[in-house]
Formats: sequence, C-alpha cells, structure tokens
Amino acid sequence: MTPERFAKLKQALARRQPDLTVLADAVHKPHNVSAILRTCDAVGIHRLHAISPDGSIRRHHMMAGGSKRWVEVVTHSSVADAATALGTNGWQLAAAHAEHGARDYRDVDYTEKIAIILGAELCGPSEQALSQADFSIRIPMHGLVESLNVSVAAAVILFEAERQRRAAGLYDRSRLDPEEFQGTLFEWAYPDIARRCRARDLPYPPLADDGALLGNPLARGV
Amino acid sequence: MTPERFAKLKQALARRQPDLTVLADAVHKPHNVSAILRTCDAVGIHRLHAISPDGSIRRHHMMAGGSKRWVEVVTHSSVADAATALGTNGWQLAAAHAEHGARDYRDVDYTEKIAIILGAELCGPSEQALSQADFSIRIPMHGLVESLNVSVAAAVILFEAERQRRAAGLYDRSRLDPEEFQGTLFEWAYPDIARRCRARDLPYPPLADDGALLGNPLARGV
Repeated sequence: MTPERFAKLKQALARRQPDLTVLADAVHKPHNVSAILRTCDAVGIHRLHAISPDGSIRRHHMMAGGSKRWVEVVTHSSVADAATALGTNGWQLAAAHAEHGARDYRDVDYTEKIAIILGAELCGPSEQALSQADFSIRIPMHGLVESLNVSVAAAVILFEAERQRRAAGLYDRSRLDPEEFQGTLFEWAYPDIARRCRARDLPYPPLADDGALLGNPLARGV
Repeated sequence: MTPERFAKLKQALARRQPDLTVLADAVHKPHNVSAILRTCDAVGIHRLHAISPDGSIRRHHMMAGGSKRWVEVVTHSSVADAATALGTNGWQLAAAHAEHGARDYRDVDYTEKIAIILGAELCGPSEQALSQADFSIRIPMHGLVESLNVSVAAAVILFEAERQRRAAGLYDRSRLDPEEFQGTLFEWAYPDIARRCRARDLPYPPLADDGALLGNPLARGV
C-alpha cells in the first residue's frame, strides 16, 4: 500500500454518497451487472441492493472486474423485503419505468435520499417492484426502440444524479459515517488482514496517516 | 402498416439529428454494439459509423434486436478513412477518452455537427483514432474504477447531447434532407418492397398521407 494509493482510497471514500443507491430487480446478465457496478462506483454509490432469491447475483458480482471490491452488494430475497428494509430507513423508491405518468428523469430531485429501482433487461421492474415504488421515472426516447439497455438507463439516471449532487456540493465533504469510513478504508487497503480479523472477531488495527499498519492484532497467536 | 404506426415512423424521422453521430472504433462485443445502437436510436442518431476492417460489425448489427432497422451503420476499413470521410463533411471529432487535458463532457457544445469517437471495451480509442480527434472528452469518475463500460459512456455523453439539443429546439422540426426523409420513411414502412425496388433500380412508389401505397412499380413484370 503506497501512500499515493492510500490517498486515492481515502479520496474515493470521501466522495461516497450514502443517500444514493440502486435496487436491481432481476438484473441477471453478468455484463449488465458489471456495467452497473462500474457506474455505481463512478458516481459514488457505496452499496447496491439487489433482489436475488438464490444469491446468484453474488457470482456475477465476483465477475465484475475492478468494481467488485469497491461497491458492496446487499441482497434481498424479495422485492417486498427490499422495499420494507429501504422504506424503514427513509429511502424514496423511484422506478426506472416509462409508464404513463412517469416523471422525466431530469425533473427528479436526486439530492434527496433516493433508490433507483432497475428492472430486468427486457421487461423493466416487476409489477411487485412497481407497486412498491413511490413514483416512476422515464428517459425521453425520440426514436422507435421502446427501451434502453438496463445498464445504459441506470447510467443516464445516475449521471443526472451526479450532476445535481456535484452542483449541490455533495462530493466536496466526506458524508459517510466516520466509523464506516475507517472500517471500509481498512478493508480496501488490507483486504486479507481485514478478512482474518473478522473471522477471529478482532478489531482492525489502527493505520498511520500514510496508510502504514500501526500494529497487527493477528501477530498474536497466529 | 396502420396509420398509427406510419405516424410513429414519421415522428421518429422528424426527430432525427443528422449532425450528431458516433464513430465506433473497435467496439466488438455484440451486447455493447446492441446497447449503443438502442441509445443512438433513442437520441435520434440516424447513422452510426464503425471501423470494421472485416465487416464483422454488420453481423453484430443484425443481432441488435429492434434497433437494427432504425439506425444505419456505415463501416470504414480504417480510422484514417473514417476521419477523412467525416472531416471532409465538416464533422468535429471528439474522442471519449479520459486523458490529461480532456474536457468535461458537460462543457462541450453538442448542438454543433459532432461525432463521438468510442473506443474498444477496455483500452478506449486507439492511438490512431486519438490522433485524428479534434479533442477528448472525459466523464467524471468519483470512485476507483478507471473507466465505464463503453455503451454506458456513450449513453452518458449522448444524453447530455440530447439535453442540449432539446433545449435548443433541435427535436422540434424535421432536420433530415426531404429526399432522405421520404426514402427512409418508405424503407421503414415497406422494407421488402423497398429492397425489391432497389434490386431492380426502380423508384419507390408514392405513399398517401396515412401510409397507404399509391401504386406498386413491382406489379409490372414481376
């Protein structure tokens, strides 16, 4: 861990947006999962939510190349479970779905705590997901094709969110809970030690300002 | 061809943007080609340019689902050929490439005649393509992943172009050459008859306002 690399990890964490997320409902194709995770990382999404009754999204997640370490994936067994969990925590749910009455995606305030529901590649979000959404958002389509690729739709919406959040100064100061910031920083910098600490229920050792390890709890009794 | 469908075809053609395009340099994966074509159709790109020395992009094009009929693909055997062809016709060439000195994608005027050069999935545009570009544009990346999926990057840039063009009223009046408008309308409405007319070097028959065929040149001597 060079000091330069450590500074880069800190900078990315300082730009994370804990009040912006995606809820992926039946997005199955690995290349779409991968593309969505890369976009999430780019706009500072810290944690993506996915409906995955059989956990298969985790396998795709593992294939998502460079992004897999940087964006945490939280799985839910059903849309109802996910909506309850997110709703209880004060998330607005906005479904990307071009139904009648949907709002133009540029007319939505993404500086509020908001989760974007993305649907399956062809069908869009399920009926169940739509019934849980607070509102739907649509992307203007000037041609004849009826829908965009799901990872493309996600990016168009999330970069509008990025534009609004940048204008509002939300990337200018660290917004993660300090404990989560420090814990994640350690996990990104020292994934192997972090895993072994967790397995033994040991706290992560402190880090110097340049990222150097200050002590190693695993040294005792390894 | 119902009158409703015919009206939809006319509306899409009336929104086509003949001065906006994409030059795909070594974009090989069929799912990316497909996603880019769907995005092009959505923002009104009438014709996409691709470097494809062996013509393989045409096979991918055939697989691009609903978009294949609506966005024409022009292939070039090399970047130099493409740049010459586009430059001669007054196109600015902007490479999507996060190099030092690249302009933020929102600081570019997309209401001018402009072609966006997209590169291969991992490497970005080739050195050759970059040397032909008038300038480079970058998308802000707040995380740790170094690049977006190529079809995602295309969509983020093209929907900024859509925003600017919508604000400038460029979707409010038909902008295609009238002859191209009528020819394409016929080809979209009656692809089989159009193909047979072309094969026999016959003009397309005229159409009524509701899309009904007014005469059929193929009826003679078929």
